Amino acid sequence: MVNKFFTLEHVNDGGKARAGRILTDHGEIQTPIFMPVGTQGTVKTLPPRDLLDAGAQIILGNTYHLYLRPGDQLIRETGGLHRFISWQRPILTDSGGYQVFSLADLRKLTDEGVEFQSHFDGSKHLFTPEKVIEIERNLGADIVMVLDECTAYPCDFEYAKKSHLRTLEWAKRSKEFMRENSPVHDYQQFLFGIVQGSTYDELRRESVEGLTGIGFDGYAIGGLAVGEPKTEMFELTEICCDHLPEDQPRYLMGIGKPEDLVESIGLGVDMFDCVIPTRNGRNGQVFTRNGVLTVKNAEYRNDHNPIDEDCSCYSCRNFSRAYIRHLFHAGEVLGLQLASLHNVHYYLELVRNARRAIQENRYQNWTKEFYQQYKTNQ
Amino acid sequence: MVNKFFTLEHVNDGGKARAGRILTDHGEIQTPIFMPVGTQGTVKTLPPRDLLDAGAQIILGNTYHLYLRPGDQLIRETGGLHRFISWQRPILTDSGGYQVFSLADLRKLTDEGVEFQSHFDGSKHLFTPEKVIEIERNLGADIVMVLDECTAYPCDFEYAKKSHLRTLEWAKRSKEFMRENSPVHDYQQFLFGIVQGSTYDELRRESVEGLTGIGFDGYAIGGLAVGEPKTEMFELTEICCDHLPEDQPRYLMGIGKPEDLVESIGLGVDMFDCVIPTRNGRNGQVFTRNGVLTVKNAEYRNDHNPIDEDCSCYSCRNFSRAYIRHLFHAGEVLGLQLASLHNVHYYLELVRNARRAIQENRYQNWTKEFYQQYKTNQ
Repeated sequence: MVNKFFTLEHVNDGGKARAGRILTDHGEIQTPIFMPVGTQGTVKTLPPRDLLDAGAQIILGNTYHLYLRPGDQLIRETGGLHRFISWQRPILTDSGGYQVFSLADLRKLTDEGVEFQSHFDGSKHLFTPEKVIEIERNLGADIVMVLDECTAYPCDFEYAKKSHLRTLEWAKRSKEFMRENSPVHDYQQFLFGIVQGSTYDELRRESVEGLTGIGFDGYAIGGLAVGEPKTEMFELTEICCDHLPEDQPRYLMGIGKPEDLVESIGLGVDMFDCVIPTRNGRNGQVFTRNGVLTVKNAEYRNDHNPIDEDCSCYSCRNFSRAYIRHLFHAGEVLGLQLASLHNVHYYLELVRNARRAIQENRYQNWTKEFYQQYKTNQ
Repeated sequence: MVNKFFTLEHVNDGGKARAGRILTDHGEIQTPIFMPVGTQGTVKTLPPRDLLDAGAQIILGNTYHLYLRPGDQLIRETGGLHRFISWQRPILTDSGGYQVFSLADLRKLTDEGVEFQSHFDGSKHLFTPEKVIEIERNLGADIVMVLDECTAYPCDFEYAKKSHLRTLEWAKRSKEFMRENSPVHDYQQFLFGIVQGSTYDELRRESVEGLTGIGFDGYAIGGLAVGEPKTEMFELTEICCDHLPEDQPRYLMGIGKPEDLVESIGLGVDMFDCVIPTRNGRNGQVFTRNGVLTVKNAEYRNDHNPIDEDCSCYSCRNFSRAYIRHLFHAGEVLGLQLASLHNVHYYLELVRNARRAIQENRYQNWTKEFYQQYKTNQ
């Protein structure tokens, strides 16, 4: 008897927030979970031991980037992405679709797939659903995503419909190709479908229905946080969650700020990824229980307190705001590291606390407490 | 009875290489030792825990840089440099003299001191021997250096003589000021004089005589590796070592490549500092038992071996040359970190091995073995 991939452990009484467990051959993930983004095979500035220290359970790799550089064949030869980057816990790879649409040049989209030019060297490539699965087999992440089209905002209904139907068709081909082609490495890979449908409730429901009809190990909600108002984002997330199967994991792609996680967990989302903790960290912006602060600002010049007094991360245990500010001003890499490490730790502690609150049936109260302390900068 | 600052433990039979111990209030240093350079309050790219991991026993801070940014007053308020940068082991600060002559603009040198403009903002400053000690008291390193003039190469005899006499005079004033002004922080600081005299044996001997006449806790050999031929550098180092007191530590400033350390330890040097391991690491150049390699080169694209198979550092235990090359090509900070960490580890292992060889009276043989394996790129 095979262990279950996802176990729904608990739903908060009178709410939708869920606590669960995902089991992969590289270990367990406790949900809700935040996944730090390791675009090019490294979560920027953080060696794996720092990630473990911050409590990371699963990290992301970007198929588009890794395919172009260093190449999925090289990573296959190394024995897969885990070995290449020396990360022994679970990894998820996206499909590269989002990057093709946001980074690459000269895209030509057909039912077959999407042709694009590398943003590095202009070389031409074709991503089909099958090609992407082939790459993801080579990379060997534990959880892999189907190729999808992420529509821009705003998007007219006709195009949104056509696009989500194509994404559905691609999802079907991805699953078939995955079934016909065994893993390259000696462990299991799980496939997630991606709900699209832009800002149209009807299309989102159709997309959920189509994907669950095909059947995946989990479902991602894509195409959000692309410019639509926040309220709309949450409404659409809720519609998707309400229609997705209860006993499978739900992953809200590319989101978001701490308050977005808090809201979305309340709607029933289990998984998140976002570059905010690392990107903002590299810009000197750090997250604390009381909100965001820009540690490189002049006001912290003589501030001998840690970024967050109550934080137990390596940065906060050892360094002052004044020191980290100095590092930023002196152009020292250590500043980027300390801010990134703290932010990743912050995000992971946030989801750990959310999980505990759910298990204790106090998610609504916990949310209130979060907002009482955390000042969002609207 | 106060513990001795320096204990000469052993001199290699029939040679000059020495093993010893330096005791400070922040712990012991086993010599010969290499000191990683933390110019602006951080050894570039390496958090303190990585330095400990690499076996660092003492690190350097640059008085010139720290005085200008973030300022010695700020560091004084924090409780000293150890606390500011979260490094609890010994620290040495240079006098800033070298940086004034190599980095600052519009220097005006008089017997009083040296006036210069900050290379950051053009602001005007005056370093006198007394001012430098005052700054170093504020910073609070365990070992502090006197202000000296480091002459350029070549340097005519007349100027070299005048300059080293002024450096001697400054050394005397430094010691006096140090005696008159107690430590700011609650631990002892030791003062080193700096031997100058350019490439003139006679002046070097005069300088040693003058400094030992004043009396310091240790002696540095300055003004070398400024362009003179290597053979001359070693001859001058030997002359200095031969005339310096046996029972005090000798520090060869700013040197050097692994083979320079091996040679100089053989001449009786105890302490070294150099930016080579970190600077070259950031350029993708790494040190191995077999010599230097440029890990970002194309030939390592598919090389799944660690930088050095026999190395036990974090980088070599976990990552391949192919991965580190990828990080350099992708512009990822982690590449700089892994290469720097390995190089610092390499240097510290080199001096650990040298120390062991000395203790076992086989330094000459060990030197031969080093050269048999290590291919220098002349």
